[in-house]
Amino acid sequence: MRAGGRRPEAVAESGQRAAGSGQRPSGRFFRSRWVEVPEGIDELDPAGLAPGFRAAGVACGLKADGGTDVGIVACDQRAVSSALLLTRNAAAAAPVRVCRERCKEGAIRAAVVNSGNANAATGERGYADAIAMQERGAAALGLDASAVAVAETGTIGVPLRLDLVLEGIDRAAATLGSGGGASFSEAIMTTDAGPKRCCVRAGGVTVSAQAKGAGMIEPGYATMLCFIQTDAVVPDPERALREAVAASFERITVDGQMSTNDTVLLQASGAGGEPLPGGLLEAVLLQLALAIVADGEGASRVGRIAVREAATRAEAERVARAIANSPLVKTALYGHDPNWGRIAQAAGQALAGVELAELGPDRIDAAELGGDSSEAELSVALGRGEGAAHVFFSDLTHEYIRINAEYTT
Amino acid sequence: MRAGGRRPEAVAESGQRAAGSGQRPSGRFFRSRWVEVPEGIDELDPAGLAPGFRAAGVACGLKADGGTDVGIVACDQRAVSSALLLTRNAAAAAPVRVCRERCKEGAIRAAVVNSGNANAATGERGYADAIAMQERGAAALGLDASAVAVAETGTIGVPLRLDLVLEGIDRAAATLGSGGGASFSEAIMTTDAGPKRCCVRAGGVTVSAQAKGAGMIEPGYATMLCFIQTDAVVPDPERALREAVAASFERITVDGQMSTNDTVLLQASGAGGEPLPGGLLEAVLLQLALAIVADGEGASRVGRIAVREAATRAEAERVARAIANSPLVKTALYGHDPNWGRIAQAAGQALAGVELAELGPDRIDAAELGGDSSEAELSVALGRGEGAAHVFFSDLTHEYIRINAEYTT
Repeated sequence: MRAGGRRPEAVAESGQRAAGSGQRPSGRFFRSRWVEVPEGIDELDPAGLAPGFRAAGVACGLKADGGTDVGIVACDQRAVSSALLLTRNAAAAAPVRVCRERCKEGAIRAAVVNSGNANAATGERGYADAIAMQERGAAALGLDASAVAVAETGTIGVPLRLDLVLEGIDRAAATLGSGGGASFSEAIMTTDAGPKRCCVRAGGVTVSAQAKGAGMIEPGYATMLCFIQTDAVVPDPERALREAVAASFERITVDGQMSTNDTVLLQASGAGGEPLPGGLLEAVLLQLALAIVADGEGASRVGRIAVREAATRAEAERVARAIANSPLVKTALYGHDPNWGRIAQAAGQALAGVELAELGPDRIDAAELGGDSSEAELSVALGRGEGAAHVFFSDLTHEYIRINAEYTT
Repeated sequence: MRAGGRRPEAVAESGQRAAGSGQRPSGRFFRSRWVEVPEGIDELDPAGLAPGFRAAGVACGLKADGGTDVGIVACDQRAVSSALLLTRNAAAAAPVRVCRERCKEGAIRAAVVNSGNANAATGERGYADAIAMQERGAAALGLDASAVAVAETGTIGVPLRLDLVLEGIDRAAATLGSGGGASFSEAIMTTDAGPKRCCVRAGGVTVSAQAKGAGMIEPGYATMLCFIQTDAVVPDPERALREAVAASFERITVDGQMSTNDTVLLQASGAGGEPLPGGLLEAVLLQLALAIVADGEGASRVGRIAVREAATRAEAERVARAIANSPLVKTALYGHDPNWGRIAQAAGQALAGVELAELGPDRIDAAELGGDSSEAELSVALGRGEGAAHVFFSDLTHEYIRINAEYTT
């Protein structure tokens, strides 16, 4: 856990219902300049859930400080449609492999989650433990095991205290409630400074979501988890989720390290009878993604690098990631240093061997590196074509070094 | 320049001649456990040069502290054979482009070098300035311009004080001497803690070399330069240099950032009449490369990650670089934390989407991360085939953040 414990105020939480529908909310969930918020959106109590969903979180004893560490989110509707996206890391954790191999990804009724132990690099036993969690959740909720996803986050290479987790699953299943978004979002936290959650309403439907991720988990990996519930009718949930994730969680980097446990689950009950308003899912996930970057281990500022005029979109993406992950650019963001040369160098490295116009101050806008804003907008025009891409990233700070070097196993 | 100035003792310098030929020297140049030193090698005065070469360094005023900042190294023999390797960065600096376009790479008689200004991202004027340096060097030495290489290192995006440099070239050309390796190696330093140079003799031939590189140059880029002189007969200098560089400078990383100015020049006069003993060039360049890593910005320890049992050599290389550049692995090296999970995560990321046996402690040796050694040997066996590769890397420290974030332009 982060030294000093959680910050008392949540980063991405809103405690009040926004004024009224039909106008842009002054809400506290949507706070980034980079999120395009659909018109007519209401921010509801972020502890709430979309109608037809229940959740709970309990403390089972995995976290040394006695914090909430086992959670369940479940849909009451049998006819749920869902989509499940999992990390591509070849060293994927046991729960990810169980989801891949034993879940019907389009018909997930519930997810059982624990924090405090990632159950990664735990061998055959870890795999069996994740199956046991799935089966206990299914039994407690009266579901087929293939309708239950499993997600875990926390320390790695450490055997799971399965007895504690199974007992926690039973208790969580017994206390599911429509206001359970609060305790559930706490049950997925590790080094997060606060819960990342929202419940919003627009176009006659509600979307609730709970996410976690702060760059690092003592002593192991960066992991992000996100669970989204809606009563909207979503005919192709996998496509909807892939498109929204491509514009949000796949646009961010803290330390360039792909986790073994990343999991995103979208569940749609359809009970609201209306489709998702355009841009709503994307806006929710992008604000949650930006909350993860802002809460990145040691982060003090967030940058957005926009690459234009690349030969292709893929080339723009490669250049944007090289800049966003350059320790020189990340330390310049930390040091408020408008050092465009570091952006030129990283772009040149990503384009090694190709013809490139000289990247000087006429092609690179690095002014906001040097400003006081907590969100710095940067850009580079490569002069090679019409490809474009952008990536959000955190800075590299003394606090990152302290967290990752000084607290040893 | 690094705060506090240069350390008084050079990192890779030997002041004494080793005992005698025919036995492994106790010399102070070859000091890494990872360098396989050929039998029967003598370490000579590292300020010396191979017979038939002369060099000099002078202070022309580019460096604010009045340090030596213009240098020349030249071969007396008209029949020199040479090889010149240059950065592939698409934002290459003016001197690199001049070398590419205006040098006969196989017949370089001399190199003119300045430190204090990299002449990178300096537009048309920078290109013209680099040509002016080449032509002034050629005139002062009585050579064709195509026989003169140009290298520069220092700040970027700043116009060169060409008048100072040209005057320096004239003075350096007038003071060339066979003991000029000392002042020449100082003329190429920027943030280096000390000169990196050697002069060794084996198999009837001498090899001298001068290198620079420490990860970062205020306020711009990482750059490494290396100049190697020998009186050996080297029939295919490009092949010899490529093979030795592949096993040395291409095996190291400080911050994963490819420079705009990297340059390596090998010159062989052939006057000694004997070939290079096997392994000699590689040993010299690897020790110099390791000196650069050990002198990496903020570095306190050096790691070597050996990847075995990859499907191919290229796959092993990709995995080794992912581990060596992971900020999580680099901070674990700094924190003396034997955290094998971070190696598993980085390997899994590099192999995203492929089938992989679980990477646990039976496949990862991270014990020396946790030890006290200044050189930590690490390994991972992927269980996929017979491909192997290794990379040397520095740790990521508070001092790196301080140097790169707190000293702004």
